[in-house]
Amino acid sequence: EEFREDIQEYRSLLPDGFFDDAYTQLTVALRRLAYMLSIDEMDDADVALILQPMVYGNYGTDSGSGYFYTRSVISGENRLEGEFFQGKFDSIDETGRDINKLDPKYLGELKRCAALVEEHYREIRLIRFTLENKNVWFIDQRPVMMKSTQADIKTLLDLHQKKKIDDAYLINAIKPGQLNEILHPVIDTPSVKDLKCLEGGISGAPGACIGRICFSTEGLLEAHKNAIKNGEDTRFILCLNSSFAEDVKAIEVSTGVLSCEGGYSAHASVVSRQYGKVSLVRPDLKLQGSKAVLGGTPIKQGDYLTINVPYFGEPRIYLGKASLIEPKPESSGLLDYMKVVKKYVKGFHVRVNADKARDAELALKFGADGVGLCRTEHMFFDEKRINCFREMIIADSQAKRREALKKLKVMQRKDFYDIFKVMAGRPVTIRLLDAPLHEFLPHNEADFEGFMKYLRTQNKTVPPAKELAALFDSQKEFNPMLGHRGCRIAVSYPEIYQMQVEAIFESVFDLQKEKVAVYPELMIPIIMNPEELKLIVYGKKIEGFNYKGLVDVEKEIRAARGAKAVPYKVGTMIELPAAALGAGEIARYAEFFSFGTNDLTQTTLGLSRDDYNSFMPDYTLYDIIAGNPFETLDKNVKELISTAVRRGTMTRPSLKKGLCGEHGANPANIAFCIENGLDYVSCSTYSVPIANLAIAQYNLKS
Amino acid sequence: EEFREDIQEYRSLLPDGFFDDAYTQLTVALRRLAYMLSIDEMDDADVALILQPMVYGNYGTDSGSGYFYTRSVISGENRLEGEFFQGKFDSIDETGRDINKLDPKYLGELKRCAALVEEHYREIRLIRFTLENKNVWFIDQRPVMMKSTQADIKTLLDLHQKKKIDDAYLINAIKPGQLNEILHPVIDTPSVKDLKCLEGGISGAPGACIGRICFSTEGLLEAHKNAIKNGEDTRFILCLNSSFAEDVKAIEVSTGVLSCEGGYSAHASVVSRQYGKVSLVRPDLKLQGSKAVLGGTPIKQGDYLTINVPYFGEPRIYLGKASLIEPKPESSGLLDYMKVVKKYVKGFHVRVNADKARDAELALKFGADGVGLCRTEHMFFDEKRINCFREMIIADSQAKRREALKKLKVMQRKDFYDIFKVMAGRPVTIRLLDAPLHEFLPHNEADFEGFMKYLRTQNKTVPPAKELAALFDSQKEFNPMLGHRGCRIAVSYPEIYQMQVEAIFESVFDLQKEKVAVYPELMIPIIMNPEELKLIVYGKKIEGFNYKGLVDVEKEIRAARGAKAVPYKVGTMIELPAAALGAGEIARYAEFFSFGTNDLTQTTLGLSRDDYNSFMPDYTLYDIIAGNPFETLDKNVKELISTAVRRGTMTRPSLKKGLCGEHGANPANIAFCIENGLDYVSCSTYSVPIANLAIAQYNLKS
Repeated sequence: EEFREDIQEYRSLLPDGFFDDAYTQLTVALRRLAYMLSIDEMDDADVALILQPMVYGNYGTDSGSGYFYTRSVISGENRLEGEFFQGKFDSIDETGRDINKLDPKYLGELKRCAALVEEHYREIRLIRFTLENKNVWFIDQRPVMMKSTQADIKTLLDLHQKKKIDDAYLINAIKPGQLNEILHPVIDTPSVKDLKCLEGGISGAPGACIGRICFSTEGLLEAHKNAIKNGEDTRFILCLNSSFAEDVKAIEVSTGVLSCEGGYSAHASVVSRQYGKVSLVRPDLKLQGSKAVLGGTPIKQGDYLTINVPYFGEPRIYLGKASLIEPKPESSGLLDYMKVVKKYVKGFHVRVNADKARDAELALKFGADGVGLCRTEHMFFDEKRINCFREMIIADSQAKRREALKKLKVMQRKDFYDIFKVMAGRPVTIRLLDAPLHEFLPHNEADFEGFMKYLRTQNKTVPPAKELAALFDSQKEFNPMLGHRGCRIAVSYPEIYQMQVEAIFESVFDLQKEKVAVYPELMIPIIMNPEELKLIVYGKKIEGFNYKGLVDVEKEIRAARGAKAVPYKVGTMIELPAAALGAGEIARYAEFFSFGTNDLTQTTLGLSRDDYNSFMPDYTLYDIIAGNPFETLDKNVKELISTAVRRGTMTRPSLKKGLCGEHGANPANIAFCIENGLDYVSCSTYSVPIANLAIAQYNLKS
Repeated sequence: EEFREDIQEYRSLLPDGFFDDAYTQLTVALRRLAYMLSIDEMDDADVALILQPMVYGNYGTDSGSGYFYTRSVISGENRLEGEFFQGKFDSIDETGRDINKLDPKYLGELKRCAALVEEHYREIRLIRFTLENKNVWFIDQRPVMMKSTQADIKTLLDLHQKKKIDDAYLINAIKPGQLNEILHPVIDTPSVKDLKCLEGGISGAPGACIGRICFSTEGLLEAHKNAIKNGEDTRFILCLNSSFAEDVKAIEVSTGVLSCEGGYSAHASVVSRQYGKVSLVRPDLKLQGSKAVLGGTPIKQGDYLTINVPYFGEPRIYLGKASLIEPKPESSGLLDYMKVVKKYVKGFHVRVNADKARDAELALKFGADGVGLCRTEHMFFDEKRINCFREMIIADSQAKRREALKKLKVMQRKDFYDIFKVMAGRPVTIRLLDAPLHEFLPHNEADFEGFMKYLRTQNKTVPPAKELAALFDSQKEFNPMLGHRGCRIAVSYPEIYQMQVEAIFESVFDLQKEKVAVYPELMIPIIMNPEELKLIVYGKKIEGFNYKGLVDVEKEIRAARGAKAVPYKVGTMIELPAAALGAGEIARYAEFFSFGTNDLTQTTLGLSRDDYNSFMPDYTLYDIIAGNPFETLDKNVKELISTAVRRGTMTRPSLKKGLCGEHGANPANIAFCIENGLDYVSCSTYSVPIANLAIAQYNLKS
């Protein structure tokens, strides 16, 4: 408003007709004024820049104007990025010449200025200039809003190398959440210009992805296999109403998931985040076999979609194939950045939630100090394994169950071996089976048929389909989250955990021979009271029944191998309010606690992650919940955690305490964890750098 | 062992052949000895009885022997009950003459002795005697194991009236749990003698019932209607895999439920207990349309079954129609007994969980001091109402929802009116809608068709069946217990609670005109944080949205009626750990707390009531859980309750605190509730006397 008045005043002072010619000059002056008003501190260089006589740049062909960023705002490459307009000043909607094609005598001047400004402001800047009478005149310089995190990091690393900034500045200059951007591919904006765009939806897992659409897990796996065979594009997007455990294998090879049920906490979203995939929930998606209608637009099997789910702002689906800029931690500067960050991460550290050696390996590069949560059930979702697991479920005797488990053990042993080896010298926390058995059952006809076929190939007496279906049906639960899962399965079927512990220690002792240091930590989920943990860890003999404890399984394996003892820990998840309150007694049998804050939040608030999306918008409308309790720890959940820490440590001063689950990746929770005596957070691979940065920033502050 | 040695010794002392004749005498002597050894205190009467010379009763036809109970062990009627064997001593497997047909000259002597013994031992006793030489000889007397609670109570009441025992003795002589027996019908044992018996199953709701079997809610309701019309037996047993909300109306008119899924905490079991019905779960039950196979035995629609689910011991199903002994609180002595008990119930009291005036009325007789939980959703399960409720659910606008709610209001107002009137002068706690909406949806084809038909009669534009089915389908939840229910529904659809509050106050002001004192207490379920409660009670205005608070609804109704204010309270259920921990802030908006210990146990232990039966046997086997946490309060649940009481009372010293849910009926929880500052427990009608007795016994102890 003030500026508009200024312009009016200028107009009245000037002779008629003058204004049109002088308009551009005025613009420049006013821009400077604006800049002056918004600037915080001004030194001599600034003042000189402002007091410099007005420049024009439109005096003939050897004059001209241009702008440039002090370096690439996309890649951070130390090379000017901008345009030059010969004989013109401030051209709108015109493409100029690449700034780097300017006469070297000018370019040198521009580069010198770029370095000066960057060093002064310690960030990428935009500089405008004119050429007149063979002189370079700098008009102004200003901050850049639209730049990538990679560009920021590269700039900071250069400045850091030149000793223009110290470690603290380097670390504090990047907000932890910003790293998300550098960890996932981003859409190359020009490539979507001509694609039809559908806005909206619920963000499940942010990022950008491209792929051909598939409407079933079977279909996607088949298409993916064929694409590899034929050397075609292997990128596919899974499109379902909602996903189940059996779909994990498709999600894993997909680039993203498009679904219509649930929201941020739906299975599809949670798994996608875990696997670093993009996930978008569009409630308006209507599936019809191998076709679908999305906001009135029909899409069919094999169509290319480009999905962009930004960290902030509206998600977008583009009909067609755009191009992406892939993240490269090595060349993005992230790994160099993390090296500095890690110097300030001591004591309280970050572990990774990883079920696969390759995830663990990447996490190591990102600064993980161990595996905090290896979810063993994910290991069974593999196409080849799940039928074997199902065979175990339908076994009607312990002997038959053990037979199926024997086959699974071979597979699981290899998984553990690989992870332990990658994490040599670092703790690896393995959570024994947590998922309810019915999560592994077939969810559709084809899957059911596949299992029947598998059974026949195993030369088993295959039960009648009807009977099998009834058996599967009887496994359904009203509230599976609060049902027969975790240690409760172990109480009913001790042989499952026994198999897992055998697989763990067989691989531990294999690695011992190879002189690889392994620090296994066995974690029991869904502990409700100390008696459960005592039974599972130390066993129990009750008239005719002998429940073999995990410590005895280890002893047997060790004796059979003639191996030396390897130090290992046994601990528990604290994910139920009863466990948090009963922590004092539970710590008698647990050497570590890992707070499973997803389930702890669900039970403390009585809020199902999978169902709360249907009414959360109403809660947000009336402002009756502070943030998303599945991202930022609720205060009651915090109270339970600190109570458990206090009571547990009272019983066992050496008790290790960690937090696993996506809350650990949220920088907003880091201070609480540190201040309440926790030893680590554990989060998904792609969140490891974020958590590490948050910790370093916390440590620098205190 | 000692006795056997004694016998050997006797044998050695006696001449050969003597022993056989004297065997019966020896038996008598040894029985006396046994009695002596087990007796606690012995007075002159005892000694005289023991030192009395040996008697025989087999000296000719005017001799004889017999036994009698000092009164009826079944009814407690003050009339000898026993047999007399003319000319015989101690006849086994023979039926003698009714003791009351004995010559009055002897009978008088027996009655005098009965009164003497009963007054001395203050309980029913069994007395044995012989007749010889026209004399009555008393052989021994002993306690009676097999006697009914009614008989005990009648005896105690007689003794109390004769001032032979005081109030304390009367009250302490009956264990609270014993009252269960007197509150439900029991099987008349001789009537099942010839019926085929199938043992086993999981006790859902104890008791005994008889009825013709029906395999669907529709079928049962139809059969019940016809039976009334034709004057036939109206007793039916509902037989289903498992029950849902819509089956409640059939459970209500049935005598019992036979199901095969779940267990003590299954829907069928919980509802049966609530309605005082018998419920048995038989996992071996296989349903096939209008037939079923039960443990290999086929049963069909219309067959009579007699089900006995005892408080202790194995449940039994008898194929056929036995006869029952129905409870009669008036004639059983229970009401007289409760009058004495109630003298010792002061301050801490018992309320009833009742949704119907007739339940509330019976509870009053049982000593209830108000309604502690009126579950308003049960009011919608009525056949006529549920379709109207469904119409509300499928409404796609607030206007349409209000239209359907208007119809429901008329019905609900009448329910409230009746309950308030019965409970005149006493508090009535009404819990606003708690159940998730999908509980009301059709669960089968017939029900779905019924709803479609209903919609057509309402002259509505009926949506296509496919669309409707999809809409219903979309309402399904993964973990409904932790889903969109209770106050969360109210946040999304404020008009539902508004309708309920209108219905409440319209009936309150109707009763004001009739000069009936009403003390309504409005209770909000599943509160997770104080903001929810504040919104619902006091409303909120947010840019364009005006959430009308319950207090404003009351004001509007009052103004419209020109009525005077009636004192009412607004409070909340505390049934989530977050609510218990956040009680300090929640109490700012709540005048009372009612601990919903069913849900609080589920969330604290992460244990679904409906699913835990599948693995609880394993927990019991290894002894890793102390009792059933849904019957006896878990220690962590107790900690949360006492924390909530402490924090809530700190904020609001006048805060009223109660506990609703079946935990309140368990005498084992009464001491905790009293000692932790609660004001009442609320339980189902048939548990009210039990809780009252437990309180009286507690008060007498302290």
